[in-house]
Formats: sequence, C-alpha cells, structure tokens
Amino acid sequence: MAHYFTESFDVADIQQFMRRALSLARKGIGKTSPNPAVGCVIVRNGEIIGQGWHRRAGTPHAEVHALRDAVGLAKGADVYVTLEPCSHFGKTPPCADALIEARVARVYVGMVDPNPKVAGRGIEKLRAAGIEVTIGVLEKECRVINRPFIKHVTTTLPFVTLKSAMTLDGKTATASCDSRWVTGEASRRLVHKLRGESDAIMVGIGTVLADDPQLTCRIRGGRDPQRVIIDSKLRTPLSAKVLTVDSGARTFIATIADDPAKIRAIEALGAEVLPCREKNGRVDLPDLMAKLGGRGIQSILLEGGAGLAGAMLDNQLIDRCLFFYAPKLVGGEGIGLFNGSGAGVMADAVPLGNIAVRRCGADIIVEGEPNYRCLPA
Amino acid sequence: MAHYFTESFDVADIQQFMRRALSLARKGIGKTSPNPAVGCVIVRNGEIIGQGWHRRAGTPHAEVHALRDAVGLAKGADVYVTLEPCSHFGKTPPCADALIEARVARVYVGMVDPNPKVAGRGIEKLRAAGIEVTIGVLEKECRVINRPFIKHVTTTLPFVTLKSAMTLDGKTATASCDSRWVTGEASRRLVHKLRGESDAIMVGIGTVLADDPQLTCRIRGGRDPQRVIIDSKLRTPLSAKVLTVDSGARTFIATIADDPAKIRAIEALGAEVLPCREKNGRVDLPDLMAKLGGRGIQSILLEGGAGLAGAMLDNQLIDRCLFFYAPKLVGGEGIGLFNGSGAGVMADAVPLGNIAVRRCGADIIVEGEPNYRCLPA
Repeated sequence: MAHYFTESFDVADIQQFMRRALSLARKGIGKTSPNPAVGCVIVRNGEIIGQGWHRRAGTPHAEVHALRDAVGLAKGADVYVTLEPCSHFGKTPPCADALIEARVARVYVGMVDPNPKVAGRGIEKLRAAGIEVTIGVLEKECRVINRPFIKHVTTTLPFVTLKSAMTLDGKTATASCDSRWVTGEASRRLVHKLRGESDAIMVGIGTVLADDPQLTCRIRGGRDPQRVIIDSKLRTPLSAKVLTVDSGARTFIATIADDPAKIRAIEALGAEVLPCREKNGRVDLPDLMAKLGGRGIQSILLEGGAGLAGAMLDNQLIDRCLFFYAPKLVGGEGIGLFNGSGAGVMADAVPLGNIAVRRCGADIIVEGEPNYRCLPA
Repeated sequence: MAHYFTESFDVADIQQFMRRALSLARKGIGKTSPNPAVGCVIVRNGEIIGQGWHRRAGTPHAEVHALRDAVGLAKGADVYVTLEPCSHFGKTPPCADALIEARVARVYVGMVDPNPKVAGRGIEKLRAAGIEVTIGVLEKECRVINRPFIKHVTTTLPFVTLKSAMTLDGKTATASCDSRWVTGEASRRLVHKLRGESDAIMVGIGTVLADDPQLTCRIRGGRDPQRVIIDSKLRTPLSAKVLTVDSGARTFIATIADDPAKIRAIEALGAEVLPCREKNGRVDLPDLMAKLGGRGIQSILLEGGAGLAGAMLDNQLIDRCLFFYAPKLVGGEGIGLFNGSGAGVMADAVPLGNIAVRRCGADIIVEGEPNYRCLPA
C-alpha cells in the first residue's frame, strides 16, 4: 500500500529534492533508450550528499551513481528517485538491493516502474527491508519525461510526436509548396535537438521526393535518429539522401510493394525494407507501428507531410503534438497540416490535453496530447 | 524640445505612477470614442493625491477628474497623464489651462497627442507657463491602448482587428462548415467584451446568410457596436437579424448593387445602405474603409468569414490580429482562415509584430500586428 504525504513531511522540501532529481533525469533524455531517463538525489540533514542520473543503457543506473557520489554516507539518508528502483538483474544488478545494502532510511519515488519485470517489486523489496517508501512525488512530471518508455513498455508500440511548423493561419507551405522557411533559427535548432532525442524520425515518400532530406541530427554531439520512410509503392530513388547519407543510424523503408529487385538494391545500400500489411492500397500504419515497436523503437518524431500526418491522426496514432507557429500569415490557399478524412462536425474534433505554450525565438510552441478516448466511437 | 530622463529622476517610480495612470485609462477603453482613453494621476511627496480617467466623450477629461480628486492640493505636485493634455476648446475647456491654473510643478506625458488640433501645443502651453514636462514615459504602452484613435486621427481610416477562432490546425470550421463551438466559453465571453469596445463589427454576406447572427454585445452593461455587412449584391434578407434586431446601434450595408427598391426596403428598417466603388465585381474595401472612417468609426472588429478576411488581408487593411486557438484538431479538409490570393512563397508571408500570447480558459490567444511595409512591392 502506498504511503501518502502526512502532516509530518514538509511537502515543499520533498518536491524540491524531487525536482532536482527530475532535472538530473532530463540530462539523459534521448540517450538512455531502451531504458528510461532517471535521476536520483540522496539527502541527509536537508543537504544533498549524492546525486546521479542514468546516462546510457548498459551503464549504471541513477541510484548507483548517486550512492557512489555519496561515498559511503548514505546510511540513514533519504533517497529521491524519479522512477521506482529496479528489482531485477538486467545488464546491471538491482538498484533496490544497492539501496538496501547502503542502509538508506527512506525512499521517495516519483512513479512506479511500468516495466512488467519491476511493476512494484522494487518498492516491495525496499519495504521488506524496513525502508520507508513514499510513492507519487511529482508523479506527473516524472511520467512526462518518460512517455516513450512508458508507452513502449506497456504496449510495445512507439510513442509518436507529430512535429509541425506552420504560420499562425495554419499553413505549412504556400500554395506553390514553398516552405523555406516557416519558422526561425531557434525553432529549427530545437528540431535538430528533438531528432537527437528520438529513436526514429518518420516521413512520407512525398517529403523524400520533394525535399530529398537527410533526416539527420545536425547539432554538435547529436545522435542521428533512425529513419522511417512510408513508401507504399517503393518509389524512393536509390540516390535519395536517406539511403546514401553517411550516418550510423539505419533507414527503414516501409512498403507494400513486392519488387524483389528494388528491395535488394535498397538493402544493398544498408537500409532495411519493411514489408507491411496493406490497407486501402497503402501501408497499414498500425501494422507498421507494431513492427517498429518490435524493433525496439520507443519514440518516433513524425515530420510530415500532410498526407502522412492526416493518416496517422485518422488512425489515432499520434501521442503528442509539437506545433511551431511562426508569427506570419500566408493567407489564401496554402498547404494545411493534415490531409485525410478529418472531423465531420466541430464536436468531433480531437481534443488535446496537457497543453503547454512557450516562445522559441520569435515563434510560439504549443504542445499537447491528443485524447482520442472522448471521441464518439 | 523634449526633456529626457536624467539621473535625478527615479525612473522606476515614474514608470510606476504612469502604470497606474495607464490602468485608469484602460477603464475607458471602448467607451470614450471618438475621444482617446486617458488616465491621470497626481502625486505629491511620492503619494497619489488625485486620480481620474476619461469616461465618455463630452464629459470631463482625465486631468480634470484627477484635479478634482486632489481637492485643491495639486499646487507643486507631479502629474502623470497617458496622453498630452489638450490645448483647445472642444466640448470641454483645455486641460493644459486647468493644470496651469492648479499650479502643478511637473507633468509626465505618455505620448504626444497625434490629433492635429493638439500635436504638441498642450505641452508648449505647459512649458510656457513654467511647468516642467517630460515626454514619452511608457510611450509604447500608452500608444497601444489608443491604436484606433491614433490611426483614425492621423489617417481618417478605422483601425481593423481581425478576430478569428480556430483549432490548432488552423481550421475555423469543419469541411461541412460546422463551427459550433470552436473555442470555449471564456473566449466567447471575451469576444462579446471586444464587441462592446469596438465602434463597429464587420462580416461578409456569407456569414449573414449562413448564421443569421445578431452581432450584438451580449454582456451585462455592454454597448452594441455598429454593424457593417459587406453585401456586394445586396442579398441580405429583410428578415435578417442584423436588420431587425432591437439594438441602438446602426447597421450599414455596403454594396455595389443598384437596386433602389431593396435599398429603400432596407433603409425603411433603419439600416443605412452604403453605395461603394466597385472592384472586380465586389465592394472596393479601401473605399469602404474611407467611408466608415468618414462616419467617425475608429475601430472595427472583423469577424469573418474567410472570403472577407482574405480580401482584407490582400488589401493590407488588417491592423491587428486576435486569434483564439482551441486545443483541438479538426484534421482533413476543414475551412481555413483566409481565402484570397495569399503569399506566393513563404518569404512573402505577412509578418506579425508585437506578438503577445496568453491563455483564455483552455484556449490560447495570440495577438499581433501585420507589418506590410517589409513585404516586396
């Protein structure tokens, strides 16, 4: 049973330390996949004596870094960790055991680990050893930083972020398809950071044919995401940059075309062709998502165009929207964000929850999570 | 010559008192037309001893209210006024004279009155009487509250605010033209407040035929704006609410149709038909703006639809955009904000300046001012 806050805790202090653990965890975002980003802080007499975060899969977890940082002083201390300490042997030994061994007094946990291999067992282990455990400190914030991990570990499907840049009148390009540039430099830099934090980036064949993008992460120290091209008819040219670019990350071509020669030619360039189920003459997107999830892809940055974005929305496969609005108006018949069927009446529009608004240079960023559940069936 | 701040003034204090004068001025917004909204604060030994604002045309100005409030203690005091005190006899005597008579020591002025009848003469008068005058305190803020007055008094044209409610994907309605409701209650209430603050509200005949709106201000104590319908072919039904609604405010029907019987029938209902110049088979919008400005209309709230909004944008007649974004997605082929020609390439999109972003209930409001000058000719 969870312990909830009582009068005897100072909630403000507890949140302050968890906030510190969260900011440590954030340093790992996009680098820990398939593991979650986790931060840990060890506190004694109101002072932080150890801190750490998980840096990369296969290396020590946040708790181990923090215990090491506390150099033997953790006995009787309070531990703040954004995610339940693990109870199982993975590539490293269980963190719950390490905390028990260090004889810490109390553990504040941001959220229970949704990984079925843990799912409360780490907390049980700590309690069985006499350690007081409080669950759910800043839980919402702790969940937000690991949305892809949570979705993937509970459903085996990737978490999809639709990123779009548009003008304030909702145009991603002019009627002549010109889109250079919609947003400012700060926003474009941020998109490269997002690419570096995503397991994969996904576009439709239309974008490949029109722009021949590299789909790489062009910031210093950035990691290239894997590339996923939806190419029902296998039209990707063998000269396309997504096939020829010098990048450590793999390109997947999702198709329903049965063209062994083209498939061999593509695979000879190092890409992987993903034969998918067909739906209405196109790649069946839910099937593709299952295949990508099965390949360990937890997070996908969906970058366009309107055809693919609309199909993903119609299939309720977008988990998060990240819209960059440039302070300008195209007017007239520019290109919109989504093709596809769309809502018949306004009451059936897809509502977005957890809305956050911020500025990025001259642009405005609006973030939100589609909530398909409240739509009529 | 203007006196600028010197070391001997405490700029923070000066701005603080002007901010108070500004908040007084704001109480008059939308009620003072054709006069500007003005606030005034009188300060002695760092304490406010008098304050006032202009409430309605024909009644005393802000300075007179503040002097009365100071009940004879204004001698030697500092006066903060958002707009230059007037120097001429209008419906009330010149405020500059009242300040001189009260023997105030110093006057801080937000902005010079752009009214050609004043335009610095009030300041000259004060200085000639030995009163120290400082100009330009929080000038930007002082200008913002009187944008319609400033535009009208300097150009004789109305200041046009385009108000639009759309989803985050830029749709004002679904493909089936359903738009009930895009935004939430708080936003819809705010729109009625905006209507109450506007001299006129303007829509196209399409909106009249589709929605049969009343175009009234439905909040307690709200003043109905005048109504302007762009109706090139004079299709407004005689039963339309804009002609029959019980409202003290006049309806204008702008047209190029020469149909004496229909015109007589419309005017018999109390509306005024405005024959306008024709351009491409439609009402010439710059001509209409000149006519409305000539009738003393300083501020227009443009409420739609896409045809009229697009034509106003193409004619560079929109001074300010006020966009309400609802946190939802229509997807597919919904109705966009603008019809019309639109920008050919992204570099020719109309940039918006003075961007402000705020939340209104669950909605997001983005405000900005189109800057047509930096567009290619």
